[in-house]
Amino acid sequence: MNATIKDVAREAKVSIATVSRVLNNSAVVTDETKQRVLDAIKKTGYKPNALARSLKIQKTHTIGLIVPDISSPFYPEVVRGIEDIASMYSYNIFLCNTDQKEEKEMNYIEILSEKQVDGIIYMGDIIRDSVKQQLKDIGIPIVLAGTEDAESEFPNVNIDNKKASYDAVKYLISLGHKKIGMISGPADDPIGGVQRTNGYKEALSEAKIRFKPSLVVEGSFKARQAYLAMLKLLENNVDAVFAASDEMAAAAINAIFDSGFSVPEDIHVIGFDNTYLSYMFRPTITTIQRPAYDIGAVSMRLMTKLLAKEPIDDMHVVLPHQLIVRESTGYGEEKK
Amino acid sequence: MNATIKDVAREAKVSIATVSRVLNNSAVVTDETKQRVLDAIKKTGYKPNALARSLKIQKTHTIGLIVPDISSPFYPEVVRGIEDIASMYSYNIFLCNTDQKEEKEMNYIEILSEKQVDGIIYMGDIIRDSVKQQLKDIGIPIVLAGTEDAESEFPNVNIDNKKASYDAVKYLISLGHKKIGMISGPADDPIGGVQRTNGYKEALSEAKIRFKPSLVVEGSFKARQAYLAMLKLLENNVDAVFAASDEMAAAAINAIFDSGFSVPEDIHVIGFDNTYLSYMFRPTITTIQRPAYDIGAVSMRLMTKLLAKEPIDDMHVVLPHQLIVRESTGYGEEKK
Repeated sequence: MNATIKDVAREAKVSIATVSRVLNNSAVVTDETKQRVLDAIKKTGYKPNALARSLKIQKTHTIGLIVPDISSPFYPEVVRGIEDIASMYSYNIFLCNTDQKEEKEMNYIEILSEKQVDGIIYMGDIIRDSVKQQLKDIGIPIVLAGTEDAESEFPNVNIDNKKASYDAVKYLISLGHKKIGMISGPADDPIGGVQRTNGYKEALSEAKIRFKPSLVVEGSFKARQAYLAMLKLLENNVDAVFAASDEMAAAAINAIFDSGFSVPEDIHVIGFDNTYLSYMFRPTITTIQRPAYDIGAVSMRLMTKLLAKEPIDDMHVVLPHQLIVRESTGYGEEKK
Repeated sequence: MNATIKDVAREAKVSIATVSRVLNNSAVVTDETKQRVLDAIKKTGYKPNALARSLKIQKTHTIGLIVPDISSPFYPEVVRGIEDIASMYSYNIFLCNTDQKEEKEMNYIEILSEKQVDGIIYMGDIIRDSVKQQLKDIGIPIVLAGTEDAESEFPNVNIDNKKASYDAVKYLISLGHKKIGMISGPADDPIGGVQRTNGYKEALSEAKIRFKPSLVVEGSFKARQAYLAMLKLLENNVDAVFAASDEMAAAAINAIFDSGFSVPEDIHVIGFDNTYLSYMFRPTITTIQRPAYDIGAVSMRLMTKLLAKEPIDDMHVVLPHQLIVRESTGYGEEKK
C-alpha cells in the first residue's frame, strides 16, 4: 500500500499541515523540521500527488472560524460581524465549535487546512502553545478576534480588558462602595480570568481599598457556578459585585433575590459584554460594552487585507469599550 | 481560456452540483436535465478534470450544518446535540449560518457539496422549493433537524408543534382564562408560524371560545416586535398570552411591566422552547420544552445510520414535548 501524508506526519512527529508546508517549500518551517519531514518522506516512500497539491494553491474564498462556544450570548454577535463583512467580500464562512478543547481545536484547524480555507479567524481566551504552533505551521493568514496571544505574534482585534474591568470597579467605588466582590472567569484564562481580575485589583489599589482574596470567587463563565459564587460573597457581606460576564451577573442577581435581598436596593451588580441578556433581564444590568459585532467586522476586514496583501497600518487593533449604566446599579430605579 | 464547471452550469441553467451529478452518473438526475448538461458540456468545450473528480468519492467524515440563526437561544443547543454524537462517531462539523435567506442557503449548500461533506443536516422552519431541489440534487444524505418538508421527502427529527401549542393554550384555559392572546411567528413560516397558531385555534375551539383574529399578533421571533405585539394585545385587554418563543415571551413580560401591569398577578404568559432565557429570566417563564439537544443528537444519529447504510426503522422521528410550569403562570409566586 502506498504511504500517505499521514504516515509521513506520524513518522516525522509533526502535523499533516507541517508536511504540507515542507512539500510546498513554505518559509515558515524551520530547517530542522524540514529535514525531519524529508527523512520521513524517504523512509515511508511517500509520493506526493502533484495534481492534488496543485489544487491547493487555488483560492477557495472560504474562511474558517474557530469558536469556543456558540451557545454563549457573546460569540454569535462576533460571528455576525464577521459574516456581514465576509459576505461583502464574497467570502464563505465555516464555523467550528470547539468548547476551547485543545484536541477539538487542533482537529478542526487541520480539517480546515485540508479543506483549503484561505484563512482562519480564531476566538478563545486561552491560546495554547500547541494550537499556536499549528496555526503558524499551516501558513495561511490568521486573525485573533476578541483575544490575543501572549507574544502578540498574530494580528488581532480586541478591547483593553484590564482597563474595562478597572472602569467597572472604579464606577462602583464612585457610588460609595468599599466591600466590592468579584465573580471572575477561570484563573487559567489569561484574558477573561487574569486581565479582568487585575483591572479589579488596580481600581481597588488606586482607591486605597485593601484587596481581599476571599472577595474574588471563580464563576468560570457558568451561570450555576456564578450563582454559588454569589452565595459565598453574600456570606462576606459585600455591598457590590462585579461579574466578568453578563450571564454570571444575571445568575448573581438571581442568587441575591433568592437570598432575600434586592438589586439595586441592597446590592449593586455590574456585568461584562453588553449581551442581549443584560437588557432583556430585569433589573436591566449595568455592564461593560465589549463591541462584539465590531470585533468580528474589524477582524474580517483585517483578514481580507491580509489575503489581498494590502498595506496594513495596525496589526493589533484595540477597540473602545464603554460602561453602560442600567438598573442593577441604581439607575432607573425610580421607574420600578 | 478553458471552460469551467461554472460555465457549464450557467449554460445548462442548473446548479454546479447538478453538473457534478451528471459527471458522476448519479441516478437522481432526470434524463432531461442530464441531456441539457451534456449539451452544455459540448457547447462550452468543458473538460472535466478526472483526477479532481476521483478525489470526490473519498469519504471526508465531515458533515455540513445549515443553521438559520446561531444567535438565537434555540439552535446552539441543537448544534450541541449534533456535535456530541458527531464526535462519538468521529465526524467533524462545519456550521453555516444563513439567516434563512434563500441565496445564503443555496450558496452554502453548493460550497458544502464542493468541499465534499458526507451529508448535510438542515435546520430552518421554511424550506423553499429551490433549496429542497438543490438538497435532492447534490445526492448526499440529508436530515432535517427540528423541521420538516411539506411532503416528508427527507428524513427528519421534530416535535409535534401543533399539539405542543394546543397543550400550552389548553393549560391557560384550565387556569380560567378566556381572553387569550397569541404572539405568533411569521405567517409564512409553516411550523413556527402556521402550526403553532393552528394549535392555539384548536384549543380555543375545543373549549368553545371564539377565535378572534385581533388576538393573534405577529412577533416574528424578534424581541422588539414581540414587545410591540404585546402592547397591541394589552389594548385588547387579554388576561393571558401564549408566545411562540421564550424570547418573545420575555419581551412580552417586559412590555406588560412597562405598562404598569404585573406577571403573573395580572396576566399569565407562556413561552416556547425552554431555552435558558426561560429560567434565567424573572419571573421564570412557563414554557413548552422542545428538546433541542435531543433533536440534534437524534438527527446526527440518523445521519450516521444513513451514511453507514444501516437499517432505519423510522425516517421521521417525533420527539415528545413537555409543558414546564413556572412563575409566569402563577406557580412559585409565593416565593416572590
